[in-house]
Amino acid sequence: MNIKGTPWRTIWLEADQRMVGIIDQTKLPHQLVTARLRTAEDAVVAIRDMLVRGAPLIGAAAAYGVFLGLLADSSDIGLEAICARLIQARPTAVNLRWAVERMRKLLATLPPDERVEAARREAVAICEEDVQVNEAIGAHGLHIVAEKYGQTGRPVNILTHCNAGWLAAVDWGTALAPIFKAQAAGIPLHVWVGETRPRNQGASLTTWELAAAGIPHHLIADNSGGWLMRQGQVDLCLVGTDRTAANGDVCNKIGTYLKALAAADNKVPFYVALPSSTIDWTLPDGSAITIEERAAEEVLFISGLTEDGSVRRVRIAPEQTRAANPAFDVTPSRLVTGLITERGICAASRDEMRRLFPEAA
Amino acid sequence: MNIKGTPWRTIWLEADQRMVGIIDQTKLPHQLVTARLRTAEDAVVAIRDMLVRGAPLIGAAAAYGVFLGLLADSSDIGLEAICARLIQARPTAVNLRWAVERMRKLLATLPPDERVEAARREAVAICEEDVQVNEAIGAHGLHIVAEKYGQTGRPVNILTHCNAGWLAAVDWGTALAPIFKAQAAGIPLHVWVGETRPRNQGASLTTWELAAAGIPHHLIADNSGGWLMRQGQVDLCLVGTDRTAANGDVCNKIGTYLKALAAADNKVPFYVALPSSTIDWTLPDGSAITIEERAAEEVLFISGLTEDGSVRRVRIAPEQTRAANPAFDVTPSRLVTGLITERGICAASRDEMRRLFPEAA
Repeated sequence: MNIKGTPWRTIWLEADQRMVGIIDQTKLPHQLVTARLRTAEDAVVAIRDMLVRGAPLIGAAAAYGVFLGLLADSSDIGLEAICARLIQARPTAVNLRWAVERMRKLLATLPPDERVEAARREAVAICEEDVQVNEAIGAHGLHIVAEKYGQTGRPVNILTHCNAGWLAAVDWGTALAPIFKAQAAGIPLHVWVGETRPRNQGASLTTWELAAAGIPHHLIADNSGGWLMRQGQVDLCLVGTDRTAANGDVCNKIGTYLKALAAADNKVPFYVALPSSTIDWTLPDGSAITIEERAAEEVLFISGLTEDGSVRRVRIAPEQTRAANPAFDVTPSRLVTGLITERGICAASRDEMRRLFPEAA
Repeated sequence: MNIKGTPWRTIWLEADQRMVGIIDQTKLPHQLVTARLRTAEDAVVAIRDMLVRGAPLIGAAAAYGVFLGLLADSSDIGLEAICARLIQARPTAVNLRWAVERMRKLLATLPPDERVEAARREAVAICEEDVQVNEAIGAHGLHIVAEKYGQTGRPVNILTHCNAGWLAAVDWGTALAPIFKAQAAGIPLHVWVGETRPRNQGASLTTWELAAAGIPHHLIADNSGGWLMRQGQVDLCLVGTDRTAANGDVCNKIGTYLKALAAADNKVPFYVALPSSTIDWTLPDGSAITIEERAAEEVLFISGLTEDGSVRRVRIAPEQTRAANPAFDVTPSRLVTGLITERGICAASRDEMRRLFPEAA
């Protein structure tokens, strides 16, 4: 997407073909800063510390991580060690495992001296496919937004949670892709952005993307989404997912479940946008998904821009207070109106998903 | 309640009988600071800027505000002007109107030169009644906690939202009163405290109260409450209310509705604790309640303690982003398991509420 007229992606191969550039998303929205990954360990740290985040982008970063690791050691043992290390960087996102497995399977069949070049090509291919897949999600999701606009004739109010925009992917994004497509199609829009405590990806990333694209939006406390739905101020919910079970249960950023409950209670359509790489066909339902418990500090402290222009971290609770920080929740498929995939839209059910992806069955 | 062994209330008449002392709750949890109200306008500002907050405490502060106003002008015109000004300080809490009306009705029948003394006595009486009412709520609510402990034999996990503790009242609190009573009765407890964005009354006030009382607790992002319920980690929800309609719909801090939906979806009992002064018998249901829209800055900025020990405000969103900030939501009575009042526990329904309060019908 464009930032002030310049096209950007979230991750790219640098000109020397041996380093990988990324946007350091921990610095947004206050600073647009890039970082360079030189080793597989750099990629692990970037994923773990969330310089890159979002299910599709984590997959792309992990693919490049395999490539960077092979630059140092392209042996069989090296390949296995790199892959094992990368898969552990974050536990929930299935794209991470998907991308690493795809790299490993391809590379394991090649002699070590061909692996670096093949890994580079494959990581680039994963990124290009991600762009195409997400653009296709946008094109399919556009129909839902256009239909709503056709029904009401007034700006479409969309509620989203966390960041499933282009910053969460290589480009376009998942849940925001239909929004970018709708804007390009001239459909008037307004987006309610839940701040997404504790890490505030809504407040810091989604708002930043929408502001850069000139899309009208308001930031809201996560608590407000249900009330806005009760007031008839939400036409549509659009969110992403980090892992989708074979029955359509979706594991997404903590708080998604609460918004889905409110959408169901108020008959607001609740759509989940996803590349099929986030579907874990081995999981019969969402109950077996491991939910990442992140550091208490993410709840107890919050970062922002002070009046003097520096970014500071402040404590919001008493010294004695501890915090719990589950990073994701599972929204049961009964609360999901539909899944927006690169092949089209389907109900969140085993049969419908298999109809779109028969090869996965 | 006690702070380090010293008994405190949230509001008191100073020794000179012409000033009112309060805890300035905007400074908690980082500093325990008191403030003095000398005029009715001081009381208006304290209520509006939330130095005092919580439905019962707003009522008590408004009663003292009438007294302070009469010190300057005890004429008929003065009394009416003071009451009108105080009622507008915050729009949602019915206790504010209730307390001011109670003062006005009593004082209007008296000659001006008897009003100051009568107002002082009545404000003191309102505070004393509030303490008794909330202690009774605690005693009734204790039975619910004790019953849950009897069923499971393990520490009772209670989820609460916002602050409905003693800081929200003159003493004891509403939703936290049963928790303080249960602790005193030796029942093992653990409290999940939703931080309650955007003003973080959970993170800054409820945690502080629980820490001071030595009650085990964890702070959580508001987004986490639903997931904890799905995981079976919540035995009971206890919240307060700022205004209760005659059918049992409850208007409480924004986000309450989402927790109530999750409780219903997971069959977790959801109780609302309230003094009957928060019941607006003139409202047939919650749909007509005016929801206060507060300043966008409360969402865009957040305050906390920096590492150097100063309290700083930081911006969490991009410069261009605007915010919406509805302060309350309405939870329909169908999602409420029961109301805990000073006269006992009843279903959130017109008939049951009138059975407990027949004089209101």
